[in-house]
Amino acid sequence: MDLLAAAIAIGLSAFGAGIGNGLIVSRTVEGMARQPEASGLLRTTMFIGIAFVEAIPIMGVVVAFIMLFL
Amino acid sequence: MDLLAAAIAIGLSAFGAGIGNGLIVSRTVEGMARQPEASGLLRTTMFIGIAFVEAIPIMGVVVAFIMLFL
Amino acid sequence: MDLLAAAIAIGLSAFGAGIGNGLIVSRTVEGMARQPEASGLLRTTMFIGIAFVEAIPIMGVVVAFIMLFL
Amino acid sequence: MDLLAAAIAIGLSAFGAGIGNGLIVSRTVEGMARQPEASGLLRTTMFIGIAFVEAIPIMGVVVAFIMLFL
Amino acid sequence: MDLLAAAIAIGLSAFGAGIGNGLIVSRTVEGMARQPEASGLLRTTMFIGIAFVEAIPIMGVVVAFIMLFL
Amino acid sequence: MDLLAAAIAIGLSAFGAGIGNGLIVSRTVEGMARQPEASGLLRTTMFIGIAFVEAIPIMGVVVAFIMLFL
Amino acid sequence: MDLLAAAIAIGLSAFGAGIGNGLIVSRTVEGMARQPEASGLLRTTMFIGIAFVEAIPIMGVVVAFIMLFL
Amino acid sequence: MDLLAAAIAIGLSAFGAGIGNGLIVSRTVEGMARQPEASGLLRTTMFIGIAFVEAIPIMGVVVAFIMLFL
Amino acid sequence: MDLLAAAIAIGLSAFGAGIGNGLIVSRTVEGMARQPEASGLLRTTMFIGIAFVEAIPIMGVVVAFIMLFL
Amino acid sequence: MDLLAAAIAIGLSAFGAGIGNGLIVSRTVEGMARQPEASGLLRTTMFIGIAFVEAIPIMGVVVAFIMLFL
Amino acid sequence: MDLLAAAIAIGLSAFGAGIGNGLIVSRTVEGMARQPEASGLLRTTMFIGIAFVEAIPIMGVVVAFIMLFL
Amino acid sequence: MDLLAAAIAIGLSAFGAGIGNGLIVSRTVEGMARQPEASGLLRTTMFIGIAFVEAIPIMGVVVAFIMLFL
Amino acid sequence: MDLLAAAIAIGLSAFGAGIGNGLIVSRTVEGMARQPEASGLLRTTMFIGIAFVEAIPIMGVVVAFIMLFL
Amino acid sequence: MDLLAAAIAIGLSAFGAGIGNGLIVSRTVEGMARQPEASGLLRTTMFIGIAFVEAIPIMGVVVAFIMLFL
Repeated sequence: MDLLAAAIAIGLSAFGAGIGNGLIVSRTVEGMARQPEASGLLRTTMFIGIAFVEAIPIMGVVVAFIMLFL
Repeated sequence: MDLLAAAIAIGLSAFGAGIGNGLIVSRTVEGMARQPEASGLLRTTMFIGIAFVEAIPIMGVVVAFIMLFL
Repeated sequence: MDLLAAAIAIGLSAFGAGIGNGLIVSRTVEGMARQPEASGLLRTTMFIGIAFVEAIPIMGVVVAFIMLFL
Repeated sequence: MDLLAAAIAIGLSAFGAGIGNGLIVSRTVEGMARQPEASGLLRTTMFIGIAFVEAIPIMGVVVAFIMLFL
Repeated sequence: MDLLAAAIAIGLSAFGAGIGNGLIVSRTVEGMARQPEASGLLRTTMFIGIAFVEAIPIMGVVVAFIMLFL
Repeated sequence: MDLLAAAIAIGLSAFGAGIGNGLIVSRTVEGMARQPEASGLLRTTMFIGIAFVEAIPIMGVVVAFIMLFL
Repeated sequence: MDLLAAAIAIGLSAFGAGIGNGLIVSRTVEGMARQPEASGLLRTTMFIGIAFVEAIPIMGVVVAFIMLFL
Repeated sequence: MDLLAAAIAIGLSAFGAGIGNGLIVSRTVEGMARQPEASGLLRTTMFIGIAFVEAIPIMGVVVAFIMLFL
Repeated sequence: MDLLAAAIAIGLSAFGAGIGNGLIVSRTVEGMARQPEASGLLRTTMFIGIAFVEAIPIMGVVVAFIMLFL
Repeated sequence: MDLLAAAIAIGLSAFGAGIGNGLIVSRTVEGMARQPEASGLLRTTMFIGIAFVEAIPIMGVVVAFIMLFL
Repeated sequence: MDLLAAAIAIGLSAFGAGIGNGLIVSRTVEGMARQPEASGLLRTTMFIGIAFVEAIPIMGVVVAFIMLFL
Repeated sequence: MDLLAAAIAIGLSAFGAGIGNGLIVSRTVEGMARQPEASGLLRTTMFIGIAFVEAIPIMGVVVAFIMLFL
Repeated sequence: MDLLAAAIAIGLSAFGAGIGNGLIVSRTVEGMARQPEASGLLRTTMFIGIAFVEAIPIMGVVVAFIMLFL
Repeated sequence: MDLLAAAIAIGLSAFGAGIGNGLIVSRTVEGMARQPEASGLLRTTMFIGIAFVEAIPIMGVVVAFIMLFL
């Protein structure tokens, strides 16, 4: 049952991170294509958003590794 | 059963945080691309929103760590 | 079974709070980008809405902690 | 089984309240951004709506606490 | 099994009431923002709609309390 | 198993009634905001619609009460 | 198992009737608000539609009552 | 298990008939509101469509009654 | 288990026929309301489409009756 | 278990055929209402499409009959 | 369990083929109605697309027949 | 259990290939109808896309055959 | 249980690759039909995207083969 | 149970990566087709986004290999 738990933890994390980052980056690319002169501002905001989105799934990865070697 | 519970807790937290932050940041980037002069105001509002969205999943991470080492 | 119940309680709370806050803050940011002079009014309304949305999930967190140390 | 029941009760309540309040407040913010002079009228209507939406989930919270200490 | 039944009854009631009221109040707010002079008429219709929507979930709450103390 | 059946019966009834009434009343409010002079006609039609929508869930409530005290 | 069957029968009937009637009546109200002079024609068509939609769920209610007192 | 089968048969039939008839009648009403002079033609087509949609669920009702008294 | 199989067969058939016919007839009615002079052509096409859609569910009904009296 | 398998086979076939044919015929009717002079070309294409869509479900019906009388 | 496997294999194949072909043919019909002079080009492309879509489900049918007579 | 695994493998492959190819070919047909002079370029790109989409499901078919005769 | 695991691994991989490639190639084709002079640039970007999308499912195929011959 | 866990881990990873990359690359291609002179900027942003999206699923692949040879 340990491995199944690790699989669920890392699987849902990967799924959530994929959707969240996909939404943010696709809108950023769309915004850059419309206004290339604001690309610095948009890229900064994109990095902040990605950092917050990635924070929880990376903890999920850590939890999964702890489950594997517990 | 302990590990499965921790996996569900952190998995749903990561999923919820991914969707919530994705919605907020993507709209902020869209708004900035349309009006770059209001970027300070929008970034402040974005941080407040992210803080409230992240509050509950971070508690979920804490609960998951407590479950792991209980 | 106790931990599983706590995981479900905090997981659904985090999911609901993420969706609810995501809707509110993203619309607020959109409204601010369109009319920056009404940002004070919008931010006040946003705080009231977030407070009501967060009320129930925070109770869910409390219930989950009670379940953990019962 | 008692704790699982409490978790389901409070989890669905939090989910329903998040969606309901999210819909109402986001539309209110949108309406205010379009017509700031009608903000008093809109805020009053928003409070009435939130009160009715919150009524059932708060009962769910009460039921969950009763289940915990029954 | 009694508590689980009560949880399902009150949980689905809260979910249904949240969606129903959310739809009605958000449209009412939208209508008011477009025509503030018809706000009395809209508010009256909103109260009638909320009353009919809330009727069944409140019976669900009563049924849940009967299940708890049966 | 009796209580679970009653919970399912009243829960699905509340969910269906919430969606059905929410659709009808929200469109009625939208129609009134666009043409306030036709509000009598719209309100009459709304009452007929609500009556037909509520008919089946109220039978569900009756069935649930019969199940409780059978 | 008898009561569970009755609950499923009446629950799905209520759900289906709610969606079906909600679609019909909401469109009728929308049509009346746009052309009040055709309200007699629309109301007649609405009654025919409601009658056909209600026919199957009412049989479901009858089946549920037969299941209860079989 | 007999009653459960009958409940599933009549429940899915009611659900399918509700959606199918709801689509047809709502579009018919919308078409009549736009062109009242073609209402005879539309009503005839609507009756044909309803008859074909209702044909299978009514067989489902017959099957359910056969299951009940088998 | 025989009756459950028959219920699933006829239930899915009714659901599929309801959706398929609902799509076809609603579009036909919409097309007739826009061009009443092409109603003969559209009605012929509609009958062909309904016949093909109904072909498989009617076989499902036959299979269900065979299952009942096998 | 034999009958359950036959029911699943014919049920999914009927569902898939209903959706596929519904999409094709509804678009064909829409195209004919817009350009009645191209109706011969469209009807030919429609028959080819229906034939390919029906090919797999009819094999499903054959498989179901083989399962019944195996 | 053999028959259940065959049923799942042919059922999902029929479902996938129905959706895939439905998308392709409906768009082809729509394109022909807009530009009848390009119908030869479109029909050729449609046949290639249908052939690739049908390739996997037909293998599913073969697998199902192998399962039946294994 | 071997046959069930083969059925799931080939079923999901057929489903995924149907959706993927359906999206690609339908857009290609739409693009050809709008610009028939670019049909060679579009058809080349379509073949490349289909080849990549089909690569994984064909491996699924191979795996299913290996499972059948293992 | 080994074969079932391999089936799930290759099935979800095929499903994910189908959706991902379908989105990319269909948009590329749409972009080429609108601007044929930028087709070289678009095709290069498409190959990079397909390579990244295919990377994970091909590992899933490898894992499935390892499971088969473990 | 080990192999099932590995299958779930790699399957959800492949699914999440497919959706995430699909969203990003399709929007990038769309943006390039509209403004070919900004293609360098867009491609850089696309690589950053893909890198963050791929990070978690690649960890899922590592976890799956660890599960296989544990």
